[in-house]
Amino acid sequence: MIAFLTDYGSRDGFAAVCHGVIARIAPEERVLDLTHDVPAHDVRHGARVLARAAEYLPPCTYVAVVDPGVGTSRRGIALLAGESVLIGPDNGLLLPAADELGGVREARQLDNPRLWLAKVDRTFHGRDIFAPVAAHLSTGVDFSEAGPVVDAASLVRLPEPRWSYAETGLTAEVTYVDGFGNVQLAPGRELLPRLAERSDVVGIRNGTTVLGRARVGAAFGDVERGELVVYVDADGRVAIAVNSGSAAMALGGVTTGTTLELVPVLL
Amino acid sequence: MIAFLTDYGSRDGFAAVCHGVIARIAPEERVLDLTHDVPAHDVRHGARVLARAAEYLPPCTYVAVVDPGVGTSRRGIALLAGESVLIGPDNGLLLPAADELGGVREARQLDNPRLWLAKVDRTFHGRDIFAPVAAHLSTGVDFSEAGPVVDAASLVRLPEPRWSYAETGLTAEVTYVDGFGNVQLAPGRELLPRLAERSDVVGIRNGTTVLGRARVGAAFGDVERGELVVYVDADGRVAIAVNSGSAAMALGGVTTGTTLELVPVLL
Amino acid sequence: MIAFLTDYGSRDGFAAVCHGVIARIAPEERVLDLTHDVPAHDVRHGARVLARAAEYLPPCTYVAVVDPGVGTSRRGIALLAGESVLIGPDNGLLLPAADELGGVREARQLDNPRLWLAKVDRTFHGRDIFAPVAAHLSTGVDFSEAGPVVDAASLVRLPEPRWSYAETGLTAEVTYVDGFGNVQLAPGRELLPRLAERSDVVGIRNGTTVLGRARVGAAFGDVERGELVVYVDADGRVAIAVNSGSAAMALGGVTTGTTLELVPVLL
Repeated sequence: MIAFLTDYGSRDGFAAVCHGVIARIAPEERVLDLTHDVPAHDVRHGARVLARAAEYLPPCTYVAVVDPGVGTSRRGIALLAGESVLIGPDNGLLLPAADELGGVREARQLDNPRLWLAKVDRTFHGRDIFAPVAAHLSTGVDFSEAGPVVDAASLVRLPEPRWSYAETGLTAEVTYVDGFGNVQLAPGRELLPRLAERSDVVGIRNGTTVLGRARVGAAFGDVERGELVVYVDADGRVAIAVNSGSAAMALGGVTTGTTLELVPVLL
Repeated sequence: MIAFLTDYGSRDGFAAVCHGVIARIAPEERVLDLTHDVPAHDVRHGARVLARAAEYLPPCTYVAVVDPGVGTSRRGIALLAGESVLIGPDNGLLLPAADELGGVREARQLDNPRLWLAKVDRTFHGRDIFAPVAAHLSTGVDFSEAGPVVDAASLVRLPEPRWSYAETGLTAEVTYVDGFGNVQLAPGRELLPRLAERSDVVGIRNGTTVLGRARVGAAFGDVERGELVVYVDADGRVAIAVNSGSAAMALGGVTTGTTLELVPVLL
Repeated sequence: MIAFLTDYGSRDGFAAVCHGVIARIAPEERVLDLTHDVPAHDVRHGARVLARAAEYLPPCTYVAVVDPGVGTSRRGIALLAGESVLIGPDNGLLLPAADELGGVREARQLDNPRLWLAKVDRTFHGRDIFAPVAAHLSTGVDFSEAGPVVDAASLVRLPEPRWSYAETGLTAEVTYVDGFGNVQLAPGRELLPRLAERSDVVGIRNGTTVLGRARVGAAFGDVERGELVVYVDADGRVAIAVNSGSAAMALGGVTTGTTLELVPVLL
């Protein structure tokens, strides 16, 4: 199976063209669309969705294209991680998924034009390089054919999201806002009990601006409609939600990269 | 075949994760995405799309997740209807499709964790319960394994949309607005000739506000561009459309739940 | 394989219903969704996406439905082109793809109700005529069964986009704006060197309004972020882009059908 993620959107048929390229090379191969609605050029968003999928999919060949640097000197890469292969640009998009799969076992730079389409356009490597390489590898072409080995330590990695915890509260970067408006923060589930220890209510601030007040440790359904909760989300991260609403909107439009402070309210 | 409907949207990859869960349990199973763009938490919309699909699909296993009550005490259920199985929350989402398939033959409450993922998150039953149950049942696990029988009469049912007809005209709730802006009303096709009997033109009102005037019994192409028609739509319901336009916008932004009056205009 | 394109959108499940119809007739057939997000009734957009796909897909049966004239006297047609079949309304939607596939070898008018659903609604020929015809033909029903031969010269063809080139510059209609905001013009790749001959910078005007200044012959990555380039896009057409941005927005909101002038700037 090939799992396919891009920021191509659906209205222009760019992803469908890549399906066609794959179907010509590997007609029997199933292709699962993870999403093509990654916000344009948002590498961090694409990386998060890819890692989320990698936790639950069977071993497969991933092709991921969120590629603002297409046509420049950024490398195309193929990674071996667990029993899976990941193919795409070397811009940080693939590494969180590779980590999820157990880490990079081997990395190669795509430089073998025999696995590409005959004509490579400077602006559409998804169609002309990444999709055909994935199709060839999925049909049994050896991983080593992709190109020469590169040092995994040389791969581009997205900066780690920032967060810190102190008695006065949690300061954390928003790492993801999903389509329901749930706001995911950087720390993992182990932080929630520490936050709840001091109070089961926190104030949420951005700098000196107070954005709202939330219950800690609850699920949506534990609070009234429209109320905020701080909980562990389905990715295992600390997150903020609103029962039957959008936390991102309730907090005044926070987006990925916003820094929030969660301050215990001592009642 | 598994038919899959949610309000997860596409940009976050939540539906893709469920595809992954299914592919691990039932790698050969085809999964047809009905839609993942049900408006968030809009159970009525999801129920309509599911019932529409059920009329035309071959017998299959439906998984449907529009689930504002996830994490509360609402039940998960599996229904046997015709030769098909429907799986999802007990909130009214599944019953119109079950009716379309000939009615509920047997209903069971999902309470068998052997068919679930090992770890069940409180906010993502689509991934952790509904998708794996569907995958197991589609591979031949007996329906009775899903959980204990529940009384079909105890299942949550959406309220019937309201409408009434009198000499003075038709008063009816808007039950659905599609992406083209076509406005579906509650009554079925048999009402149209009765409406046309008095006049082939109706005024459309919302309370005392006059919204427009439409021809009765026509198709889009029978009226000029931009003009309103009252017709029987492809679901077999009375509906209002505009030739090459959006009736919902032409009528000032009507939405599901709006009550409209269609009053014969005696020329 | 059946390749499927419509303007149905995803939220209403209309495309899924057609999948169901196909699955009942041809359960083994793979259906590839090219897109269902063609802007409503935008035949030109649909035709462009279909032609783009036809260049890269293996031989298959195309079903395309962007059909503002449904329910009127416009014909339904099936075209044989290369080793592929194209099915849809006779409104110009299919011909650019047929050209891409080598031209129409044979055209037939759909008039054989034995290949349709038993009940044909006036507003949903995708479900009731086009999808079932495609399913039957893909399972081996002979092309001649679709209906009588029609003269290919009688098929409706979209007007050719207008453009002209003179020493003073290029005047060209915008033929397509993709989801990234890249602006495609009518001429093919051979025009770019002629434009670059006079200067590697052009002013971009709409009538007397100056919209911006662009470098000619470059790729996105060759200019600074936010700067305009004129280049040959992945469809092989002259196009305008912005590095990490939307050219359509940078040029003040140009859309399909806008006429732009690209005037060499003699530095």
